[in-house]
Amino acid sequence: MSEKRIKIVENILNANDQLAAENRARIDAAGVFSINLMASPGAGKTSFILATINALLDQDVKIGVIEGDTAPVTIDSDKISAAGMPAIQVNTGGQCHLDAVMINNALDEIGLDTIDLLIVENVGNLICPAAFRLGTHSNIVIASIPEGDDKPYKYPNIYRGLDVLIINKIDLLPYLDFDMDYFKQGIEMLNPGLQIFPVSCKSGEGIPTWLDWLETKIQ
Amino acid sequence: MSEKRIKIVENILNANDQLAAENRARIDAAGVFSINLMASPGAGKTSFILATINALLDQDVKIGVIEGDTAPVTIDSDKISAAGMPAIQVNTGGQCHLDAVMINNALDEIGLDTIDLLIVENVGNLICPAAFRLGTHSNIVIASIPEGDDKPYKYPNIYRGLDVLIINKIDLLPYLDFDMDYFKQGIEMLNPGLQIFPVSCKSGEGIPTWLDWLETKIQ
Repeated sequence: MSEKRIKIVENILNANDQLAAENRARIDAAGVFSINLMASPGAGKTSFILATINALLDQDVKIGVIEGDTAPVTIDSDKISAAGMPAIQVNTGGQCHLDAVMINNALDEIGLDTIDLLIVENVGNLICPAAFRLGTHSNIVIASIPEGDDKPYKYPNIYRGLDVLIINKIDLLPYLDFDMDYFKQGIEMLNPGLQIFPVSCKSGEGIPTWLDWLETKIQ
Repeated sequence: MSEKRIKIVENILNANDQLAAENRARIDAAGVFSINLMASPGAGKTSFILATINALLDQDVKIGVIEGDTAPVTIDSDKISAAGMPAIQVNTGGQCHLDAVMINNALDEIGLDTIDLLIVENVGNLICPAAFRLGTHSNIVIASIPEGDDKPYKYPNIYRGLDVLIINKIDLLPYLDFDMDYFKQGIEMLNPGLQIFPVSCKSGEGIPTWLDWLETKIQ
């Protein structure tokens, strides 16, 4: 049974990659820059998206958000809609990650021709999302200070395939034992030269530097 | 293919449950109380285990720990060993949860006859561990204040099957917007009357109340 299981898992991943390539072609054709945003539960994915939306409000950048959740709740997508941007809710039905099929369906709804930037908020999970390409341009992880400085050592796979790392909740550094050098050493080992932006979505610190990078990507 | 996939997943879960029952029988025969400890990455599982070990040091309670990690790192099991307790490291090889097979193998090593309490530290993940019984007596989740008050609404499955909920990092409450009533309403909806222990592993607050419960379970 286990050989058959491995074979089927391989087939699923191949089918996923093919559909991811189709997603990418659709996104590219619309001239949209796209992000797959991954993190632990509660690292601040939605807060980071809202900080980005609010900072770009006066710049005429339209941001579409695909919200992945394991349960049929609209807590996050309601927040995005309240900020005036289109949000599509994807309920994974208990599954622990988004995949290219779900994104393919969501792209039908999001109105690619009306947006400049697409942010996909993946399910809160540091493990499974790393294995499924969605077709987006940039894989971004949000680490957060309260999670601790040992996470790159314990969840290496998700850090290996990253393009950008956000370190959120730096306003909490005075209250926690977080060794930034140890954390960054772990990152450097897995993904040398990775672009890192330390931010606080609460105070706004670091957000302008992140936006400088983002604005070079948006056409 | 998808029907075949579902069938195979069902077979795997059935096989898992059978082995979980075997694990339980072995644990019961040894007169050991056992816990499956689940949480997001960085919620404080290892800190909570260490706080429990240290608080029971003068009471002649021997605690064995099975450490689940997705990567071959011994950061957590080294901490347990340093605290003078037996620790078995289980590397899931990238898999996002422990299962009954892994625990069955680890039970061979842990020395069940030499311990009073077995704590299994599951992989840091709020989704997948909920689906796999290990054979332990109590399912316990550690939620942590920085993760936010909306987690029961967004990750309901893991809260449904719980026996005890630990709310960790309450020392950070003054620095975060965490609505305890909203959080507890979400829990109550999913798991009415659930036993909840708010603690700070850093300051030690709340640990004695947790120990009062634990000591009723250890023979």
